[in-house]
Amino acid sequence: MLELTEFQYSLVYNAFSFVVAAMGAAFVFFLLSRREVSPAHRLALTLSTLVVAIAGYHYLRIFGNWADAFTETDAGSFIQTGFFNEGYRYADWLLTVPLLIAELVLLLALDSRKKWITIARLGGAAALMIALGYPGEVSDDTTTKWIFWGLAMIPFVYIVWALFSQLGRAIDALPTQARRAVRAMRTVLLVTWLVYPVAYLVPEMGFSDATAEVLRQVGYAVADVTAKPIYGVLLFVAAVALSRSEGYRGEVGPTDGDGEREKVLVANS
Amino acid sequence: MLELTEFQYSLVYNAFSFVVAAMGAAFVFFLLSRREVSPAHRLALTLSTLVVAIAGYHYLRIFGNWADAFTETDAGSFIQTGFFNEGYRYADWLLTVPLLIAELVLLLALDSRKKWITIARLGGAAALMIALGYPGEVSDDTTTKWIFWGLAMIPFVYIVWALFSQLGRAIDALPTQARRAVRAMRTVLLVTWLVYPVAYLVPEMGFSDATAEVLRQVGYAVADVTAKPIYGVLLFVAAVALSRSEGYRGEVGPTDGDGEREKVLVANS
Repeated sequence: MLELTEFQYSLVYNAFSFVVAAMGAAFVFFLLSRREVSPAHRLALTLSTLVVAIAGYHYLRIFGNWADAFTETDAGSFIQTGFFNEGYRYADWLLTVPLLIAELVLLLALDSRKKWITIARLGGAAALMIALGYPGEVSDDTTTKWIFWGLAMIPFVYIVWALFSQLGRAIDALPTQARRAVRAMRTVLLVTWLVYPVAYLVPEMGFSDATAEVLRQVGYAVADVTAKPIYGVLLFVAAVALSRSEGYRGEVGPTDGDGEREKVLVANS
Repeated sequence: MLELTEFQYSLVYNAFSFVVAAMGAAFVFFLLSRREVSPAHRLALTLSTLVVAIAGYHYLRIFGNWADAFTETDAGSFIQTGFFNEGYRYADWLLTVPLLIAELVLLLALDSRKKWITIARLGGAAALMIALGYPGEVSDDTTTKWIFWGLAMIPFVYIVWALFSQLGRAIDALPTQARRAVRAMRTVLLVTWLVYPVAYLVPEMGFSDATAEVLRQVGYAVADVTAKPIYGVLLFVAAVALSRSEGYRGEVGPTDGDGEREKVLVANS
């Protein structure tokens, strides 16, 4: 039976609560900032808003489940007395990972038809990657874990290849500021997605059960905050830059915003 | 007494939680995307928004009811110790199925009077179909199950006939992109609605009680995600296409969006 020190139990507990707060904050931010982005790029921002809403729901469930699954002993440690459901993560990823891919593709310099074909291909590969990871995640058998890990890596490598090689020109063709932000999104996607296959294999790395569980849960939490709210903010920066470069100045039109503000600043100086 | 393995119990539990997240995400998506659709077609989108809100509520109840109805044994299996209420599904369908029909009819190339007559006829048939299914669903008697199954199939066949034959011309008369999306909605409606009479009959198919219950619940969950959020996204695509074909360019007017974007693409190429 899994036994955690109070420090270990609390670390995971607080990490989960932190993620709930981060997803909620990102949700409000994306809602409030919609009008900074031109209607042409608003769908990408909408998908970003959905991603943090979905993840916020799942982290609320995960947080409650963690608290329910453990009982404090007289000695002050925490033993697992109930089921901790990894299924929430997979349900979350099945919905959010294709959306994260779609957000990025929507910003690229591709025609509309090409975009939707790319989204279908890469989104499908992403869903396949998640579905192939699940049987290994829930298995205690080392061989099964490695087989499904290997299978899930095939669509993963395909997605990385598509983003870095095949779609490279559609990123290079963006205006400077948008290009930088989209490249940063791509890097975040690569780096954070690498956390998942590593966290998945933590039980195989010879740590104690308690250490392995804490590392996995905190690893997933850090990766989810980076891959969703932070990635979403980069998307927002890219979408605003693209909107500006296409002449969009917010819903209020040309008399609005920066121009007026500058005049006021000049008049005051 | 129904006894499930941990895998079976978790599969249903996670499927229900997944549906809650999917309905919630669709609700946020439809709210945020209203302005993409012209005022003339916004009622259809509103009904779609109501459908996922109603279904999200019911799946929250179903999810909580599932967790409460089962108790984990010392051997790690789950036995049903409480009542699992199928009534939630029927209450949900009684509200949502006529709305799903109405959404589709609202998009058709019919005059307003004809639309409302069609909605009344098909919506009434849909409500009758659900009401006739219920006595068979809650009965353990095979004969009763088949009688009400047969009775419920009459309005079902009438609706399918109306959508594929009688209203076929009102679909064919739509502009290309809208026509494709409405045809896809019609197919989704037929295919997913066929899941319900099959899931309903699963207890008659000679599976073990545990397998039958898991198949039915997961079958209903998959059908509900397809028939509500995915169907709603198809409706959204159709409504946007119709709005565009009628000259609507979103709330920002002619300086917006695709036109500007295309110029940039051309300039970059």
